[in-house]
Amino acid sequence: MRMSELSRMSGVPVATIKYYLREGLLPQGQATAVNQADYGELHLRRLRLVRALIGVRGLSVSETKEILAGVSEHASDMHEVLGLVLGARPVDKEAPPPAKEAFDEVDELLKEVGWQISDHAPAKQVIAEGLTTLRSLGMDVGWRTLLPYAELAGRCAALDLDQLRDTDDPLERAERAVVLTVLLEPVLLALRRLAQEDESARRHRA
Amino acid sequence: MRMSELSRMSGVPVATIKYYLREGLLPQGQATAVNQADYGELHLRRLRLVRALIGVRGLSVSETKEILAGVSEHASDMHEVLGLVLGARPVDKEAPPPAKEAFDEVDELLKEVGWQISDHAPAKQVIAEGLTTLRSLGMDVGWRTLLPYAELAGRCAALDLDQLRDTDDPLERAERAVVLTVLLEPVLLALRRLAQEDESARRHRA
Repeated sequence: MRMSELSRMSGVPVATIKYYLREGLLPQGQATAVNQADYGELHLRRLRLVRALIGVRGLSVSETKEILAGVSEHASDMHEVLGLVLGARPVDKEAPPPAKEAFDEVDELLKEVGWQISDHAPAKQVIAEGLTTLRSLGMDVGWRTLLPYAELAGRCAALDLDQLRDTDDPLERAERAVVLTVLLEPVLLALRRLAQEDESARRHRA
Repeated sequence: MRMSELSRMSGVPVATIKYYLREGLLPQGQATAVNQADYGELHLRRLRLVRALIGVRGLSVSETKEILAGVSEHASDMHEVLGLVLGARPVDKEAPPPAKEAFDEVDELLKEVGWQISDHAPAKQVIAEGLTTLRSLGMDVGWRTLLPYAELAGRCAALDLDQLRDTDDPLERAERAVVLTVLLEPVLLALRRLAQEDESARRHRA
């Protein structure tokens, strides 16, 4: 299809598509004339993925580029791809630096649930930051508080990976892993909020 | 304590504290002289809460002000307070408007899990948006896919509300509800990522 068609199908303005092409977020189309190229299904899928990562996830263009490059390169190694996605998160500059004890607590938690996690996993820092912030607000939240939540997270992860079973093409599998990990986040938080509304109605209005 | 002490204890610069006082995010201190006031534990706790909502949650000053006003006003009605917090979310302007069918699917899901949810709950729109985006990326995700996730969310909500049981003071209870709902979000997502790393290692490297 022509670029105008790609724009219409994806809802992304032509100027933005050209920008993504220049930045290498989108592979070049097949040249058909000096100033004309042909784009296919792959471009459309990739374009939607880019919009999702930037729009929903709030990643920068360069972060998105890095993730997509990694996804193509390591498409056959799902573990590697998930690692790339898991590593990407908007940095919260307002959060206090996590206390040393908070990191120890995260290790304690991981030991208890028996998860094998790489030393540099950014999610460990996120949890340590969360514990530090909650403590600074006078909340008595420690790794034992998080233990039942970690068990639920384990079941959630099993569901996540089940969603990837029926795809054979490694690149498509990798893209699906990115999309599921990133785009389900707001949905899962929204489900928790609805469940809280229901649970709180049951407990407090009973 | 003096404002300088409040600044030191909270890590918030004096200029920022003055701004929060002007904006009404923080109650005025007890005047001790023409240009001097005394601040207490309540100010410190409130200040940390404000920083958490703005910094971690990414809310604007006016959104934070609205939530805090609601929390004080409805402190004795936990259900109301949770509703206020649940209602606050940064709007994603890039997301495609959810399709009508996506809203129907959310209703189908809620019927299946039997949750009593108010019609205008913003979390319903978040889920509908998520389903629409996932579909636009060619992912076959519908309300049945979300059903087991909703069941996990239900258990998560029960854990959340358990954390609030041991507080009697209604205002403190309300503040804790806000803090837990908002600040646990990044922690829960981080736990899911760690669990995915472990689960993916087990499945793909076995």
